[in-house]
Amino acid sequence: MKTYAYGVDIGGTTVKIGLFKTDGELLEKWEIPTRTEEDGRFILPDIAEAVKAKTEERKISPEDVEGIGVGVPGPVDDSGTVLKCVNLGWGIFNVKDSLALLTGWRVAAGNDANVAAMGELWQGGGKGAANMVMVTLGTGVGGGVIVDGKVISGSHGAAGEIGHLTVSREETEICGCGKKGCLEQYASANGVARLAKRYLSGNDQETVLRRETAVGARAVFDAAKAGDAAALAIVEQFGEVLGRALASVACVTDPEVFVIGGGVSKAGEIVTDVIRKYYTLYAFHASANTEFRIAELGNDAGIYGGVSMLLS
Amino acid sequence: MKTYAYGVDIGGTTVKIGLFKTDGELLEKWEIPTRTEEDGRFILPDIAEAVKAKTEERKISPEDVEGIGVGVPGPVDDSGTVLKCVNLGWGIFNVKDSLALLTGWRVAAGNDANVAAMGELWQGGGKGAANMVMVTLGTGVGGGVIVDGKVISGSHGAAGEIGHLTVSREETEICGCGKKGCLEQYASANGVARLAKRYLSGNDQETVLRRETAVGARAVFDAAKAGDAAALAIVEQFGEVLGRALASVACVTDPEVFVIGGGVSKAGEIVTDVIRKYYTLYAFHASANTEFRIAELGNDAGIYGGVSMLLS
Repeated sequence: MKTYAYGVDIGGTTVKIGLFKTDGELLEKWEIPTRTEEDGRFILPDIAEAVKAKTEERKISPEDVEGIGVGVPGPVDDSGTVLKCVNLGWGIFNVKDSLALLTGWRVAAGNDANVAAMGELWQGGGKGAANMVMVTLGTGVGGGVIVDGKVISGSHGAAGEIGHLTVSREETEICGCGKKGCLEQYASANGVARLAKRYLSGNDQETVLRRETAVGARAVFDAAKAGDAAALAIVEQFGEVLGRALASVACVTDPEVFVIGGGVSKAGEIVTDVIRKYYTLYAFHASANTEFRIAELGNDAGIYGGVSMLLS
Repeated sequence: MKTYAYGVDIGGTTVKIGLFKTDGELLEKWEIPTRTEEDGRFILPDIAEAVKAKTEERKISPEDVEGIGVGVPGPVDDSGTVLKCVNLGWGIFNVKDSLALLTGWRVAAGNDANVAAMGELWQGGGKGAANMVMVTLGTGVGGGVIVDGKVISGSHGAAGEIGHLTVSREETEICGCGKKGCLEQYASANGVARLAKRYLSGNDQETVLRRETAVGARAVFDAAKAGDAAALAIVEQFGEVLGRALASVACVTDPEVFVIGGGVSKAGEIVTDVIRKYYTLYAFHASANTEFRIAELGNDAGIYGGVSMLLS
């Protein structure tokens, strides 16, 4: 094992880059813009230039660099081929081989949600676990399923798509995926806002939430923490749907820990507490005591995970 | 790789044993009684005696035997320790080490549903797949989840317990596991009988099923194949619940094929057709074309799987 490695997390607006020691220490992190023009053809050359410049600046010998682990916002197969990254303008090509050619280093590439899960497993909320499921509650609901220390991608790159578990047959609105009643429609930041809107329009209960023009997930969790009855009822609905869905996930891979990340998780223990409450109600008895932890690495999960993927 | 191996499937009434060539050929199979008296302490010695006698009878040198793979009806951890097999009278002990001590051969041990899945993957309906989920529709609903060619057991031995996915919140009867609304309550042989009973008591529709004193799953599928409208409606209910549950499973591990086994699967393609119909409706788009196949090894899946587990 060489001394250094780079973790790279390519987003639609910025590319996050981290210089790590291979023992897990993050030495430095920074961002460069994601240049999506001309089908995103500058993105990998920009990354190569950035890491080569950093290596020189730090007076690190290229021979002491283990390589680069990259997370991309789209499906990636086991050979490192991206199947399409709409946000980056990319079509189908092998990102792993391309970046290796540009840098001379070994490269590993994976889907960003899966890579973030690897990061949390390595140095975050899942540290020490062999079987883990990462649930990212952001604009949507993402997932990363880790079995025996490795993230699984599935036969169509769709393993861990737990945001699209059907949790309701009564839903009338359509999810971004085209189906109705997906977990994402209730447990993402937008989903919590939707639950709030429905709850508030369905009764006249007095609540601080009525003072907001558009009630977002943060307002709901803040009000719930302050004891607002309507907000608490909405949080219960969120917990019921998510706890029940994760009990289903546990019937499939039976992880030892669920790590909850994404914007919604910033509300803290109120989130894990309410998920656990309903999870316990619906879980198969052998899995009833599975742990729930808040993700620890925040926006750095991707760069940590890139390195972890490279080293595993 | 040595030439021979034994596959053993321990059930509550009989122990099935198969002598295999390690290339996958089943040379001979037979059964011995499962002696559950005195906390099941004769079960492993009986098996050891049976396989040693067979080895002598066949004039096979013990050095040409690769070992024994055993499936047991209960959770087994990665060390080969059974956590409790109520049907056998067993408490907690290491079945792998115990049988190795009795025979002098290498032993692998696993949960019977998981082992059957390995059998179907090796020489049955899942042959050639790397990612597969086996669904056994028997008295209950069992599952075996295979990722990258290996069955996963989970952190509490509960991976693949898909019979206990919660599929209904309206259920009033209690499942064997203590919860309400488990998949098993609708999709097992008993579950189909329950659906039939409810359906028939809820209306006066004329149907051949009313001629039966107790309507079982076989009668329902037979009548449905003959075009009986009530039976067809019950089959649709079965397919809706099971197809929806398997769409959830696909959001977790995204297998390339579901293999449907157990007594209910003997009805044949009517089963896979109706599951596929509803699966497609609920599945995430990337996984919508996952295959459904009927299991091929029947009651021999366990002995095949024992050998496959030993060899993998």
